Amino acid sequence: MATATPLRGTPITELDTPALIVDLDAFEANLDHMRAYVEQAGVRLRAHAKTHKSVDVAKLQMTRGGACGVCVQKTAEAEALVAGGISDVMISNQVTAPAKIARVAALTEKARVLICVDDSENIAALSRAMVGRSASLEVLVEIDVGNGRCGVKPGKDAVALATQIAAADGLRFAGLQAYQGHAQHIYDHAERKIAVDTVIAQTAQTVEMLQEAGLNCVIVAGAGTGTHPFEAGSGVYNELQCGSYIFMDADYGRVREKDDVPLPFQNALFVLTSIMSVAGDGRAVCDAGHKAASIDCGLPLVSGREDLIYNDASDEHGVIKDPDNTLRLNDQLWLIPGHCDPTVNLHEEIIAVRNGKVETVWPVSARGMGC
Amino acid sequence: MATATPLRGTPITELDTPALIVDLDAFEANLDHMRAYVEQAGVRLRAHAKTHKSVDVAKLQMTRGGACGVCVQKTAEAEALVAGGISDVMISNQVTAPAKIARVAALTEKARVLICVDDSENIAALSRAMVGRSASLEVLVEIDVGNGRCGVKPGKDAVALATQIAAADGLRFAGLQAYQGHAQHIYDHAERKIAVDTVIAQTAQTVEMLQEAGLNCVIVAGAGTGTHPFEAGSGVYNELQCGSYIFMDADYGRVREKDDVPLPFQNALFVLTSIMSVAGDGRAVCDAGHKAASIDCGLPLVSGREDLIYNDASDEHGVIKDPDNTLRLNDQLWLIPGHCDPTVNLHEEIIAVRNGKVETVWPVSARGMGC
Repeated sequence: MATATPLRGTPITELDTPALIVDLDAFEANLDHMRAYVEQAGVRLRAHAKTHKSVDVAKLQMTRGGACGVCVQKTAEAEALVAGGISDVMISNQVTAPAKIARVAALTEKARVLICVDDSENIAALSRAMVGRSASLEVLVEIDVGNGRCGVKPGKDAVALATQIAAADGLRFAGLQAYQGHAQHIYDHAERKIAVDTVIAQTAQTVEMLQEAGLNCVIVAGAGTGTHPFEAGSGVYNELQCGSYIFMDADYGRVREKDDVPLPFQNALFVLTSIMSVAGDGRAVCDAGHKAASIDCGLPLVSGREDLIYNDASDEHGVIKDPDNTLRLNDQLWLIPGHCDPTVNLHEEIIAVRNGKVETVWPVSARGMGC
Repeated sequence: MATATPLRGTPITELDTPALIVDLDAFEANLDHMRAYVEQAGVRLRAHAKTHKSVDVAKLQMTRGGACGVCVQKTAEAEALVAGGISDVMISNQVTAPAKIARVAALTEKARVLICVDDSENIAALSRAMVGRSASLEVLVEIDVGNGRCGVKPGKDAVALATQIAAADGLRFAGLQAYQGHAQHIYDHAERKIAVDTVIAQTAQTVEMLQEAGLNCVIVAGAGTGTHPFEAGSGVYNELQCGSYIFMDADYGRVREKDDVPLPFQNALFVLTSIMSVAGDGRAVCDAGHKAASIDCGLPLVSGREDLIYNDASDEHGVIKDPDNTLRLNDQLWLIPGHCDPTVNLHEEIIAVRNGKVETVWPVSARGMGC
């Protein structure tokens, strides 16, 4: 029914499209670069698995990639990764629904589980769910450092929640979660630094207030692929939650490390697509649209073909501007998705390739597990 | 692991979120309205299954809903629906990859299969694949009536392809495919009519030229939820391919039937979401973001709550503007997705509800089947 999973050794030219592809050389370079970086910076890496939702990728991040564990956003993602053998998972998010809290509590019997909170009632509910469990649930207070999403205000509100956690049965206060998502995508280095300076200042002050209250932050966590050198060098953060570094995407490709230098990661993720219609008037149509590549951070780029522009997406089609009419029916193109995380979520599997052939296939283990 | 499929009778308030919900009363009203419409208009309905990718919904469209068959966009969707018992499927799209062509040919042994073409080589390839098959593949020529995507120019190019089909072994010339996707979403009735008048004129002229060449169009197909009364009343089209009418969405909610009257279909599709963080400063956060509702036609609306605005989406979160601070942790909201088709594609199942309870659950049979 659905296209069969391709066998090892299948030439890329024979893959059915659209297909989600990872270039293993680029992927491994990203693994290695980040490991070397966190080792020299003296911080931990807790790689964000929301990017890939894959047990196989998580395992590679924790072995070759030097990660101490992974982050996820959803209870079902945590369950899928623990079931696949991942032993250290932080839900870097709030879990407030009673049925989900019970699942999180049950998961502490199978793995180290950490979670974030920003609400007093939620802490009480998590504590009740942990009564009678042999393990503890490690709880971080999330502070809103300018992201405008979840988290309490830095400072005394955070201290109040941390104090409540420290006194709660079944819970252990683990530290602070302080992530600024918007800052990741500020392309200019200097502007990005200014945004993160505020983040670091708020976090540092809250850590200090917690210490004064006798509450030690074992973990001060945050940072993403765009900002992690700032947090890593802050002397405040000790755990980075980068996710996109492993694959990269068109939007992160626009972020500058310094002046006009791109980030030190290679684009490893592609949507392989085929031309299915050629108009001959400077336009062709490929078989990958909204259902193959997310557009929340812009349209895909066509890798290695500066003469082509992915110009318009509909559900199952992409219209390619091809001024020189070079494209022919069934030509393959490698699209760089605008945004990696929601693109991976559209696919059942990641086809990992090297030297023009399939080397392995990774199921998107937690795909569709949005609860 | 993943949240278990809810049992019949489960109260909506107990559903795990985010969840894709269909209001059965609204859904059935849409089924009935469209059936009555095509019966009085004297045209066929071939409902587009790209919207729902569900065997169950397709069957309801072909029984209670009066559809003669369904359309799909992908070979794998056709296979999934035929495997589920749908006996009449049009791939309203080009299939050009050799491996996919072989699958389409094989499918003609199991169901009536129709397909669209816009290329001479593709016709030859389809014909070769049909050699030795007992059934015929019914082939429509797609003309580009202003959509700027697939299709040959109306007129003599279409006649040339139709002539080739009629002479090709294993193929049967079935008619014209003439769909203008962009016109569906022109909100103003008069402007939309102007756009479709051109579509109809081009289609009518091509039908006439085909007739002069001795080629009869058994099917003249096209139209969507936004424009179908124009095509139905044209005297040219005889098969409508509406898809979104069955669920509707926020964008189709903005399309006017006439003056300030909305389209005569009810919104039946919702993403049920829960509040997971309350800032208390006129802002709360729900658990449905890009991975639960597509934003290619704008952000979701909050159904029944004019005081609330879904203001910002990230991968797993939606930020809700709540000026009066009415929202509490775990409150449920019913989101109307911006665009139904790619939203359904994000989910494993559609939970069909009535009177506050789950009545049935429809698997998204062809979810992820993008090839």
